[in-house]
Amino acid sequence: MNPRGLRMIKPEIRIVGIDDGFFLPHTSGKCEIVGVVFRGGYWLDGVMHTWVEIDGMDATENIGTMIKESPHYGQLRVIMLDGVTFAGFNVVDTCKLFEMTELPVIAVTREMPNFRSIQKALKNLEFGTARLKAMGNLENVVKVFTRKGERAIFMQATGFDLDLARNIVQNTSTRSNIPEPLRVAHLIASGLTTP
Amino acid sequence: MNPRGLRMIKPEIRIVGIDDGFFLPHTSGKCEIVGVVFRGGYWLDGVMHTWVEIDGMDATENIGTMIKESPHYGQLRVIMLDGVTFAGFNVVDTCKLFEMTELPVIAVTREMPNFRSIQKALKNLEFGTARLKAMGNLENVVKVFTRKGERAIFMQATGFDLDLARNIVQNTSTRSNIPEPLRVAHLIASGLTTP
Repeated sequence: MNPRGLRMIKPEIRIVGIDDGFFLPHTSGKCEIVGVVFRGGYWLDGVMHTWVEIDGMDATENIGTMIKESPHYGQLRVIMLDGVTFAGFNVVDTCKLFEMTELPVIAVTREMPNFRSIQKALKNLEFGTARLKAMGNLENVVKVFTRKGERAIFMQATGFDLDLARNIVQNTSTRSNIPEPLRVAHLIASGLTTP
Repeated sequence: MNPRGLRMIKPEIRIVGIDDGFFLPHTSGKCEIVGVVFRGGYWLDGVMHTWVEIDGMDATENIGTMIKESPHYGQLRVIMLDGVTFAGFNVVDTCKLFEMTELPVIAVTREMPNFRSIQKALKNLEFGTARLKAMGNLENVVKVFTRKGERAIFMQATGFDLDLARNIVQNTSTRSNIPEPLRVAHLIASGLTTP
């Protein structure tokens, strides 16, 4: 599947990187989510934001709506997520996000997700089964070396070829072993939401 | 004056670029201020924020404190401001900011400031004389061409040589005619504070 004709990677491909801000775990309330639009691995083109409930169920819907309603939507070709859980255990269903936005989704983590401990944690939460189902795609996590001599990272791609996704992750890791849209989304989200 | 031994410009010199977010003019309330730490004209290294009163008198103090209390302070060599008025007519006194932080300050604008209309506007405000005094340095505004074939911008430097300041402004305008720390500070501040 190559949505929006994503067969080749242009160096200035527009990517939105998503991360969450500071929140107090196990409290009720909302957490700010930041989306950073990058052209390839170098240029920041825009910033968007939304809110999701801590440990809630609205991450997929709210992040999808944020992206679709953004003035950048028409230019975007890829969504990159910092993992699939936001604001605690508010799980993004990457398949639903792909359907909703028609944009392929790459979830990136620094460590190989520990499915057993995730399953255990989710089971204890309200809507545990729904959360587990949303995380279903995460079984196809692969290791990627993004930069010579640096630690590998882990990714899962929804909506397009694994090779293409790997290529995008590698090409956008211009400053560190993490793709630049996610490195910068993290800096902005954490820098602006710390009390 | 070359504070912190700023005689030569290293390509990775750390600069904090400051801009304000969205606010409703002529209302009471606060406006978010964003500071973006850049290494030269390419890499975003961190983000900080503070709040100032709309049309208030606290911009110098609050921006100075934000910078001094940031974990990046020890690495910073230059402050870049998007003009000298934030959140309406909350004027930054660049001399005071320089004294407070021991960092040279460059204020950048797209257009040549119209001093007559600024003076007129400030006179009608509470503390009009104090605001005008704070803007005193702005008489030394110079035109700078940052990129071939693009429009010139305007700058005023406090705390170091004009040639050095001009050089920094030119070297950091990597993506547009505006220095990258200010282009990105604007994108973040406006993207995160629009309702």
